[in-house]
Amino acid sequence: MRSAIRAFSTNVTKTDRKGFVPRRALLYVPGSSEKVLAKVPKIKVDSLVLELEDGCPLASKAQARTNIAAYLDDLPSKGDHACFELGVRVNSVSSGLLADDVKELSKAKHLPQVFLVPKVDDPDELAAIWDIFKTNYGAERIQNSKSRLIIYIESARALLDMPRLLATTLNLHKNAGFFKLDGVVFGSDDFCADLGMSRSNEGTETLYARQRFVTCCKAFSLQAIDSVYIDIKDLDGLRRQSIEGKAWGFDGKQCIHPTQIPVIQESFLPPPDKIEWAKALIDEYIKHENEQRNTVLTFRGSMVDRPVILQAMNIVQTVKYIQESQ
Amino acid sequence: MRSAIRAFSTNVTKTDRKGFVPRRALLYVPGSSEKVLAKVPKIKVDSLVLELEDGCPLASKAQARTNIAAYLDDLPSKGDHACFELGVRVNSVSSGLLADDVKELSKAKHLPQVFLVPKVDDPDELAAIWDIFKTNYGAERIQNSKSRLIIYIESARALLDMPRLLATTLNLHKNAGFFKLDGVVFGSDDFCADLGMSRSNEGTETLYARQRFVTCCKAFSLQAIDSVYIDIKDLDGLRRQSIEGKAWGFDGKQCIHPTQIPVIQESFLPPPDKIEWAKALIDEYIKHENEQRNTVLTFRGSMVDRPVILQAMNIVQTVKYIQESQ
Amino acid sequence: MRSAIRAFSTNVTKTDRKGFVPRRALLYVPGSSEKVLAKVPKIKVDSLVLELEDGCPLASKAQARTNIAAYLDDLPSKGDHACFELGVRVNSVSSGLLADDVKELSKAKHLPQVFLVPKVDDPDELAAIWDIFKTNYGAERIQNSKSRLIIYIESARALLDMPRLLATTLNLHKNAGFFKLDGVVFGSDDFCADLGMSRSNEGTETLYARQRFVTCCKAFSLQAIDSVYIDIKDLDGLRRQSIEGKAWGFDGKQCIHPTQIPVIQESFLPPPDKIEWAKALIDEYIKHENEQRNTVLTFRGSMVDRPVILQAMNIVQTVKYIQESQ
Repeated sequence: MRSAIRAFSTNVTKTDRKGFVPRRALLYVPGSSEKVLAKVPKIKVDSLVLELEDGCPLASKAQARTNIAAYLDDLPSKGDHACFELGVRVNSVSSGLLADDVKELSKAKHLPQVFLVPKVDDPDELAAIWDIFKTNYGAERIQNSKSRLIIYIESARALLDMPRLLATTLNLHKNAGFFKLDGVVFGSDDFCADLGMSRSNEGTETLYARQRFVTCCKAFSLQAIDSVYIDIKDLDGLRRQSIEGKAWGFDGKQCIHPTQIPVIQESFLPPPDKIEWAKALIDEYIKHENEQRNTVLTFRGSMVDRPVILQAMNIVQTVKYIQESQ
Repeated sequence: MRSAIRAFSTNVTKTDRKGFVPRRALLYVPGSSEKVLAKVPKIKVDSLVLELEDGCPLASKAQARTNIAAYLDDLPSKGDHACFELGVRVNSVSSGLLADDVKELSKAKHLPQVFLVPKVDDPDELAAIWDIFKTNYGAERIQNSKSRLIIYIESARALLDMPRLLATTLNLHKNAGFFKLDGVVFGSDDFCADLGMSRSNEGTETLYARQRFVTCCKAFSLQAIDSVYIDIKDLDGLRRQSIEGKAWGFDGKQCIHPTQIPVIQESFLPPPDKIEWAKALIDEYIKHENEQRNTVLTFRGSMVDRPVILQAMNIVQTVKYIQESQ
Repeated sequence: MRSAIRAFSTNVTKTDRKGFVPRRALLYVPGSSEKVLAKVPKIKVDSLVLELEDGCPLASKAQARTNIAAYLDDLPSKGDHACFELGVRVNSVSSGLLADDVKELSKAKHLPQVFLVPKVDDPDELAAIWDIFKTNYGAERIQNSKSRLIIYIESARALLDMPRLLATTLNLHKNAGFFKLDGVVFGSDDFCADLGMSRSNEGTETLYARQRFVTCCKAFSLQAIDSVYIDIKDLDGLRRQSIEGKAWGFDGKQCIHPTQIPVIQESFLPPPDKIEWAKALIDEYIKHENEQRNTVLTFRGSMVDRPVILQAMNIVQTVKYIQESQ
């Protein structure tokens, strides 16, 4: 019945790095600056995103495309990266710039680990996005890649239609072999502009939007990435909003400056007692799976069902992955 | 146009006890303990629920089934109950335990007044639930019973799909004669686990979920039962959350300890001026219905439409029912 | 893909008065009092609504219909109105009074600039509403008029089904020539009665409802009009709630007393820096549209897409319109 969850659960006993990427912080790096690109391998952040969209001025987009394509083409020469994941954020299909982005990127020998596609507003747009990728990369290269997909919800219409948007994207993977959707980002700036909202520090105006957003992500077992905290100097406010986001079910947060990384990544790390609980539960779960398939799992006195196992798995994978890389 | 409401309105002039059950507090009593079961007739609470699900450890489920079936079989011998309603919470269909529950319960001569089915996630599950009941009780025994149904919303997917879930359940009554859906419970613990949320005392993290939940219940004229307040010793916090729930439109609250009953039931009782208003309006409504069918009802200067009448009816029935039984 | 938005955008370079009506405050004036009606031309408010529904007692409805029809019949003789828009709120289709309202109104030579139809609960009701208007006015007279439509969302069911309600209403304009839907009002009193809610001054109980309401309006590029502030004497509370509404994306607020007008209209006026920004952006946009159609517009360093242009357009039109009339 829960096809998204069932699909996920086939991987659930493998805590391998390929199956899970922590994205506590997701940092944008402008692709237009070669000087900044040279520093990319050393930047320590869960997810590092080379930027072609809003962080890249229109006049620099052609240069940024060439730079990023060259970077990807020559990826092995960069050595090990300090980040867990290297992604590229392309322009939206409605901007008319996506085809040029993908055309240039597809010339590189390597694909990024994740493509981030902003401003997905309508299930129809997904067909157009898939078409642009297929035309440039070829269906086979996409199907054989391990690259993932992250999309952005940034308008009133997209938020209302989000369940259908996510189901359509997951089906494009299942039926056509498009990159597997792995996470969703709430683009609050464009969302607030679309609604004519004024932003406040408390963020009450986006409570409905952010809580509906998380609910939709989790209904499809997808990572939920929270909005940007604009005020770079206010690290206390950033911490407060990060902790709130984690408490509401978000898995990570967008990040526009390196000083925000430690505050965000610390806030999205599970507390020690939760880690202990999760490890013990997963041990029990694996033992149970190997032994007696047709009974219900109980742990510390209570029955355990799928959401609890997924939550524990998420905690264990995050921590394992982060520890291994230190 | 509002079929659910129209269906309800055919009963609206009968303020009989069969048509309405107040469920300000809904107390779970473990079915596994014969000692506790012996006290059931004397427990004073609106709705008393014999528990086979989360409050009943896996190892005790078989015993609990036997105990509850025996209790129901021998129901007349227990005399009058102090509660308004005696229910049984079975296990979810996804647990794989529901068939065993219903098989055992169906051996008893009597049915509980309400069956409570947790973790309904998907309209497809309802067909499976109906099938299990039909197989064990037989369609005719179900159709001839006065038993009601309460279901639980406990996941992101269920909350998003709630209108379709409720419509499907009401249609199962209308088209196949399944128990009539009468109320819905928000299962906040499982919901928060599904979303990876951390609970706070203020409960801001579930604001969207609880307010959407009430809206869905009321769109189908169903009772809305609020989440459990976990901290048994904090009666002030319980009172605060109960009053908030009532103000948001909830009709009652789950209850995990007898000390919580008076606080909850008092909080969910309408205030005296509201009771006076409701009684006068219903008197006027009955007079109006008997006299002049094709005009609009006005009361104290304003036109009165269906939702206002239902609200007044709810208040009058709650108070009447409670007073009669004291 | 965004048909509603695209439809709007064809007008976007014309800042004519016909294309846009500011509705910061929407004042109800009872149609039953000839004395009050005589003052209508001098009342200074963005949108002035002659009232046949809740503000008009049942016993006075026939008189109010006659008065309003006479007013509209003789409209040119009233001279220039101080309001931007003169509307009529009719009764809901479910009240059974709508046909009588429209029959009487249709006898007048002139139509109001906007018809306000309350308590639209179900897409099926829209067919009934369209039918009543067509029967009385004739399809041609409706299609040739410039009158707009505003509908009210006032129940749990309507809020849940709001996207389909708005799409159906916009389609009735596109396919059958019914009045063009231009705005939507949140009827909080009936909504709270439908849900059995108690109102508080802070209004936390309607947070979900109001934020979902705005999101639905903006997904279809419609004006969102906020709930009534009941306590006429509490102008500070009114200001607080007006500012909150504007920050959340509302375009205006209902108004039940003339003293509320200045507080509301001031709160819904954009701040000076926002006005400067919007004017400069629209100048740039018009230049860009005239010159180089196939590139992306950038403004002050960032790319500008449709929602931002619509937001700026809304600000410019509001201010231009208001200034021209002073």
